[in-house]
Amino acid sequence: MSSFARLVRFQPQGSAEALIGEPTDHQQDVGLATRAGEAVEVEVFSGSSVLSPGERTGEKKLVDRLLSPLAQREVGTIRCIGLNYARHAKEVNMPLPDVPVLFMKAQTALGDPFPAPTTIPRAFVKDNAADYEAELAVVIGKEGCKNVTEDQALDYVLGYTAANDVSSRLAQFAQSQWSYSKSFDGACPIGPALVHKDQVKSIADMQIRGALNGKTVQESGLDDLIFSIPKIVSFLSQGTTLPPGTVILTGTPAGVGWSAQPRRLLKDGDEFSVYVSHGVGTLINGIVEEK
Amino acid sequence: MSSFARLVRFQPQGSAEALIGEPTDHQQDVGLATRAGEAVEVEVFSGSSVLSPGERTGEKKLVDRLLSPLAQREVGTIRCIGLNYARHAKEVNMPLPDVPVLFMKAQTALGDPFPAPTTIPRAFVKDNAADYEAELAVVIGKEGCKNVTEDQALDYVLGYTAANDVSSRLAQFAQSQWSYSKSFDGACPIGPALVHKDQVKSIADMQIRGALNGKTVQESGLDDLIFSIPKIVSFLSQGTTLPPGTVILTGTPAGVGWSAQPRRLLKDGDEFSVYVSHGVGTLINGIVEEK
Repeated sequence: MSSFARLVRFQPQGSAEALIGEPTDHQQDVGLATRAGEAVEVEVFSGSSVLSPGERTGEKKLVDRLLSPLAQREVGTIRCIGLNYARHAKEVNMPLPDVPVLFMKAQTALGDPFPAPTTIPRAFVKDNAADYEAELAVVIGKEGCKNVTEDQALDYVLGYTAANDVSSRLAQFAQSQWSYSKSFDGACPIGPALVHKDQVKSIADMQIRGALNGKTVQESGLDDLIFSIPKIVSFLSQGTTLPPGTVILTGTPAGVGWSAQPRRLLKDGDEFSVYVSHGVGTLINGIVEEK
Repeated sequence: MSSFARLVRFQPQGSAEALIGEPTDHQQDVGLATRAGEAVEVEVFSGSSVLSPGERTGEKKLVDRLLSPLAQREVGTIRCIGLNYARHAKEVNMPLPDVPVLFMKAQTALGDPFPAPTTIPRAFVKDNAADYEAELAVVIGKEGCKNVTEDQALDYVLGYTAANDVSSRLAQFAQSQWSYSKSFDGACPIGPALVHKDQVKSIADMQIRGALNGKTVQESGLDDLIFSIPKIVSFLSQGTTLPPGTVILTGTPAGVGWSAQPRRLLKDGDEFSVYVSHGVGTLINGIVEEK
């Protein structure tokens, strides 16, 4: 029996300390509530990490600022799967992959939910090619995730959150490898809540949506994944240890801005949100162009 | 004035503790000496990391086991530049890149010098496609390496070591992105010594060699780099923080095994070595196929 249904990492009012806790309103979308200026009440856990949350303390606090469910020092290198929804592969004119396509982001790319912005670096602003990718993120929670089978894979998963795989398309297309265009500081916001895997009876029932300035631009069920979550975890673990805290972005559905007619790229003052069902809620970030 | 010319991280005889120190014989190739079973004497520093080595203690110890100059927890995500020597790009039939081509390895790929082996994972052994890439590795040593110019770049560099960018070619060619085939546990041995940048008056004067079972198979001067070290550091830092400890592999010269006639791939019982001049020495690893 898991000790929590979902957790947030946050700074409480009046303190810069990062705490872990479970929202007391189990129906509340903590991302939307924070954006609306509504109170988010959290029951505090004794631990300081979702990887070792400790016990419920019974103490309740109000959230001042939501943080990414894991800190940069906890996540190690971020794994990302490309082209994992068939309609997205088609919209970017890429063949369906035979195996999961893996690229990486450095942990310095990790970003917090609103009010933290997503900052497009000066070097990419001139390209006017910054784009969004709404994704389901899987978090590994157990030691020993190496050479695991698909049947074993979910044993090593702690839970799920939402992510935006922010990308600068001209930099991406300027070279064969994708990391450079997708790993700048803040290019991987995650959150708002980490939902325990036990809350998800079937991953295929999960829903994901991306919205630009409130308008839905990406929408899919997780039943559309080309490679399933167990397949991805098993594949990535071959010969390779995935330590607890490893974050795996699992691909984005169709609707990215670069492929839209007309194009809709991220601009200063925009707001992008990623909604994931089953209690994860809405990850919201304003877009800021670095001056 | 730097406090050291070159440092090794090591376990002394009779202890599993990792120490930092400077070899007392300034001409000794500590990699070759270790492989030959010769004594390597080190003057111990007070710190436990090459990033903060502290002071000379005056105490001398013999090396029992050489370790990678930085520990996994110190390096964060490993950066690698592909196709950075013109003759290598030609041998693998790839066009010369317009910008540095960046891919990443997780820190779990970091490996130690001999006697630590390079283990080819079971999942890749069947491909019979494991290959070597001798590379110069740059280590960032100073906070604040973000948006730096080429003129500023070397201010943030601590020094240089050698690396082997171990790769499984069939897995590499099975997808567009290179991380999966190059990031398994141990796929990035580095060492044996970290040489302070002040020891290198001109990077273009450095020499690199790769040898398979004692036979030189790669050999180049660093004057053949397409993108210089300052250019690479500046480019990678655009919008992206490169924290102290960041390791950047700078590309491999011509002579990789996959492109040789006949092919020479890594097999159980082989030994691969990467020599870098200016005191870095020879990084040696035996090859073991995972059973």
